Amino acid sequence: MALLSVLTPVLAVVLCLLIGFMLVKSREPGTTTSPSVGETKAGSKAEFRPWVDQDLQDNTEITANEKENRDWVESNDEDLPHVPYSPLRYPVETVLKRSQDFYTLMNQRRSVRFISPEPVPQEVIDNIIHTAGTAPSGAHTEPWTFVVVSDPEMKHRIRLIVEEEEKVNYHQRMGEKWVHDLAKLRTNWIKEYLDVAPYLVLIFKQTYGILPNGKKKTHYYNEISVSISCGILLAALQNAGLVTVTTTPLNCGPQLRLLLKRPANEKLLMLLPVGYPASDAIVPDLKRKALGDIMVHI
Amino acid sequence: MALLSVLTPVLAVVLCLLIGFMLVKSREPGTTTSPSVGETKAGSKAEFRPWVDQDLQDNTEITANEKENRDWVESNDEDLPHVPYSPLRYPVETVLKRSQDFYTLMNQRRSVRFISPEPVPQEVIDNIIHTAGTAPSGAHTEPWTFVVVSDPEMKHRIRLIVEEEEKVNYHQRMGEKWVHDLAKLRTNWIKEYLDVAPYLVLIFKQTYGILPNGKKKTHYYNEISVSISCGILLAALQNAGLVTVTTTPLNCGPQLRLLLKRPANEKLLMLLPVGYPASDAIVPDLKRKALGDIMVHI
Repeated sequence: MALLSVLTPVLAVVLCLLIGFMLVKSREPGTTTSPSVGETKAGSKAEFRPWVDQDLQDNTEITANEKENRDWVESNDEDLPHVPYSPLRYPVETVLKRSQDFYTLMNQRRSVRFISPEPVPQEVIDNIIHTAGTAPSGAHTEPWTFVVVSDPEMKHRIRLIVEEEEKVNYHQRMGEKWVHDLAKLRTNWIKEYLDVAPYLVLIFKQTYGILPNGKKKTHYYNEISVSISCGILLAALQNAGLVTVTTTPLNCGPQLRLLLKRPANEKLLMLLPVGYPASDAIVPDLKRKALGDIMVHI
Repeated sequence: MALLSVLTPVLAVVLCLLIGFMLVKSREPGTTTSPSVGETKAGSKAEFRPWVDQDLQDNTEITANEKENRDWVESNDEDLPHVPYSPLRYPVETVLKRSQDFYTLMNQRRSVRFISPEPVPQEVIDNIIHTAGTAPSGAHTEPWTFVVVSDPEMKHRIRLIVEEEEKVNYHQRMGEKWVHDLAKLRTNWIKEYLDVAPYLVLIFKQTYGILPNGKKKTHYYNEISVSISCGILLAALQNAGLVTVTTTPLNCGPQLRLLLKRPANEKLLMLLPVGYPASDAIVPDLKRKALGDIMVHI
């Protein structure tokens, strides 16, 4: 009985620690067996999802509740004077024709991996980046940086980083098939266009800004904003008769950011090689969905 | 002493429960006082961030490690025949002029909340949605659905949902100021344009697809792809002389999805009221960053 009354608090402590541990564990989403830090984080994030209601897990919902910058565009409207907006007004036939012509032009756009080394005037690229910068952005933060690389040595260093990462990815992904089918795979991770294209445009999203008091200010919707800007950039390229292929160079964002000396608040979102299409360019014979498959009219 | 030995296990239990509770609490990022489930989840997710290395937390990194659909565009290239790509080639002066003209056109775009009720031919909207559908997408999944609403009753039901949510958001955010400054705030949560604009375009991202075997297939990069598509859509609207305001109707995604009878794999990303600008439209006197502030040339 004396022994029991001594042991009871010990048992109670052990029991409580066990319960506490289990509670903590059940809230810890990832595993710790992934091979790299990057993978662990990614795995955690990915495996976190199943516990969250799909409808609530939306990015838009997350941002909604931070109660800042709720207005997507120009949240600081109230502080600014307003001016009349009277753009050019086309007759309805012109509206119809312009919408049709622009569709025809944009529908000719394709992702092209065979880019001509012919020079493109820098002024054209300036105009195109300037156009991308007209995109709307959450709270008018304009959270984008376009790094335009034409220096051959820098292009080559970018290529080495991207290819090294691609090689690893393909290797891991393909496993044994790798050995037997190297020739075919090489075409996937060898990115000749990174040397050949006269310009590489690396699009960074600014995930936060720095306030005058030195504190971070989160840029909500920065990824959506920068992607919209990229859409306008693609339209501008197509309009000018230039081509690109929209790529997200996986896992090499941090390396490329350091190489290009971009600050810590900037994350690489996209890498676009830009130029004229090569005269022998080929593209896969893809079709696009019909209008009825992407649009619902109510 | 007897009392003490009886109390010891009780104290131990209380202490341990306290420690356990604190441990759990310290890992629980959100508060539990938020008024809705949506808010709690969102708060948790948002505050979860500080524990993650910023460089690794990138969306691109997450996707990288899932080792599927790594190729952003047309990952199924290998299975498709390739065809020559020989688009129209402009002389260099034309390229320069076109890039300049397109910048001038796009730089006139503004987010406009004052939309004219004048009708716009459905064919124009069809062309514009069709144009948005030419965007590139991760693995050519084309993960977008554009719900175009012109039915007055449906527009009004959308307005009621959006305004109810906006009202709650502003109320929570503004607290006491609300009472004193209602008139000013009303202009923020009253969205007259949702009734007035001839069209509302609700852009849904398809977060996953359904494979022939009934399993889910995650659409990686669906948000980036749909945002790019939205950028092309904005360019198409501007080209046609129409206006919109890019909004993300926070927290009402699920309600609007149900109202519009969209399937569970679709999440509302954006809501764009579309039409001609009202003749008395005004916009805040915003400036855009200079080219040198958004572009770095290496």
